[in-house]
Amino acid sequence: MSRYWIAIDWGTTNFRAFLMQDEVQVAHINQACGLLSVRLGEFAATLQNLIQPWLEEHPAVPIVLAGMVGSQQGWFEIAYAPLPATARSLIEGTRRIATSWGSPAWIVPGVSGTSQFGQPDVMRGEEVQLLGLSVLHPAEQHFALLPGTHSKHAQMINGEITAFSTFMSGELFALLSKHSILGRALPQQQEDENAFLLGVSTALHGAPFSHLIFSARTRRLAGEIADAHVHSYLSGLVIGYELLALPGAQRAWLVGSPSLTARYQLAADQIGLDFVPVNGDDCFIRGLCHLYSLLQENAS
Amino acid sequence: MSRYWIAIDWGTTNFRAFLMQDEVQVAHINQACGLLSVRLGEFAATLQNLIQPWLEEHPAVPIVLAGMVGSQQGWFEIAYAPLPATARSLIEGTRRIATSWGSPAWIVPGVSGTSQFGQPDVMRGEEVQLLGLSVLHPAEQHFALLPGTHSKHAQMINGEITAFSTFMSGELFALLSKHSILGRALPQQQEDENAFLLGVSTALHGAPFSHLIFSARTRRLAGEIADAHVHSYLSGLVIGYELLALPGAQRAWLVGSPSLTARYQLAADQIGLDFVPVNGDDCFIRGLCHLYSLLQENAS
Repeated sequence: MSRYWIAIDWGTTNFRAFLMQDEVQVAHINQACGLLSVRLGEFAATLQNLIQPWLEEHPAVPIVLAGMVGSQQGWFEIAYAPLPATARSLIEGTRRIATSWGSPAWIVPGVSGTSQFGQPDVMRGEEVQLLGLSVLHPAEQHFALLPGTHSKHAQMINGEITAFSTFMSGELFALLSKHSILGRALPQQQEDENAFLLGVSTALHGAPFSHLIFSARTRRLAGEIADAHVHSYLSGLVIGYELLALPGAQRAWLVGSPSLTARYQLAADQIGLDFVPVNGDDCFIRGLCHLYSLLQENAS
Repeated sequence: MSRYWIAIDWGTTNFRAFLMQDEVQVAHINQACGLLSVRLGEFAATLQNLIQPWLEEHPAVPIVLAGMVGSQQGWFEIAYAPLPATARSLIEGTRRIATSWGSPAWIVPGVSGTSQFGQPDVMRGEEVQLLGLSVLHPAEQHFALLPGTHSKHAQMINGEITAFSTFMSGELFALLSKHSILGRALPQQQEDENAFLLGVSTALHGAPFSHLIFSARTRRLAGEIADAHVHSYLSGLVIGYELLALPGAQRAWLVGSPSLTARYQLAADQIGLDFVPVNGDDCFIRGLCHLYSLLQENAS
């Protein structure tokens, strides 16, 4: 059994690969080469090209993939594992595919369920981070917030994902800042903590979102926020609005990149929420290590 | 005193002018020639060009303008009249400007105040429709909903505008359908009443907006809405979410274009709200007639 393997998170906008020696990361690749930039039918060739330097040294290295690569728009569509989801149920839904260069590859399924608000909901990739969180920080219960384009709020009991809800915070911020009247004719933007926190505290009053965001225009007209701080204010509104949906004052794990978790932490501090930041890459790698070890058990 | 005059609603995206003979509309012009398509400093020339056919017959016809034409990005910036706003306070804030072709022109101010959710809020143009509503349908109290890019919910007491809140419903629908993942790779869209009503009823469960809209993706994945009906469903979500913010079961006047009020009426019927549709143009004309008569009194 080969000791080297590759862990990959292939999402809509980014490709992130980690060359692993057993459970230790020895190299990584980060490319803005998500699904949107790959033509249908060219996933295998794109992958081979992206990891070429590693393949030269490790020709038939095993590869485990998670994320949107398993969606309708991805390499192969892998059916979602239903809630409650465990490492075992994810392994049962994992599909093995062959590659032209001899690497065995596995694509891990996402998870589908009904959100806390009664809507159908899905995720792809975050289930691996959640699994990793439960391995890194074992506990009877986890409540975790995974911020991003489509933030996830998830509940785990004994390492089993029992519930989750999606919040399109990152995408709404991008839409409003790039394409709406709120972002029109703005000068070069500067990060401003006060404007961000004003956005957070404004969101906490509970105004409906479609009303709330108009304050980015009216506060600018009223001179309460500077033209250069509109993005910071908008970011505060969107994140504050998302945090308002958190159930009660329980401790939450905040899983993501250091820059994004720092932003959420700032908002959480203002609200008085107890957040514990954890590196999202560490969680992803730990989760995929766990799944890969189960795959090897199954194979042996 | 000239019997002919022109009433104009000059907004961000549209230019709408009505040639009036006293209180009777005798012609109208509708052009997609809003502020965004006019270069700074060229408002007078653009206006002269747009109404040229009427100027030939009525060379120095008086002109009364309302809408975003009085904003920072407009012809002249006219300070907002504060709440509570009346016909008299709007007249006090109206500014007279000269034109090179001899027409006297007046720009009516918008209104600013604090929304029911404690945020600063503004409107330009809708105050004239509200005034017209109170003239057309006199009552002690009016609660009115003016749907649009930026919908307004307004309260009037004895014809005085006492409160209002903005909801960016139309703009959010446009952003989500044109620029978000929810609208990506869709076939030609068809209006579908069932999908629209499913959106309305889904919104009524009270999910946070940033979670709610993700259902346009998950219901499509689950086969619950057809790819060709995603826009209808999204429209139902956004309008249902807006209607959820209405205070209680009071009767509301629905002021707008017949096609837009019909859409809101459909949602209101499903929810059991008592809406009375009124033509938005009729309200605008009646309101500006009232203001013009006061301007003439002031002048005489």
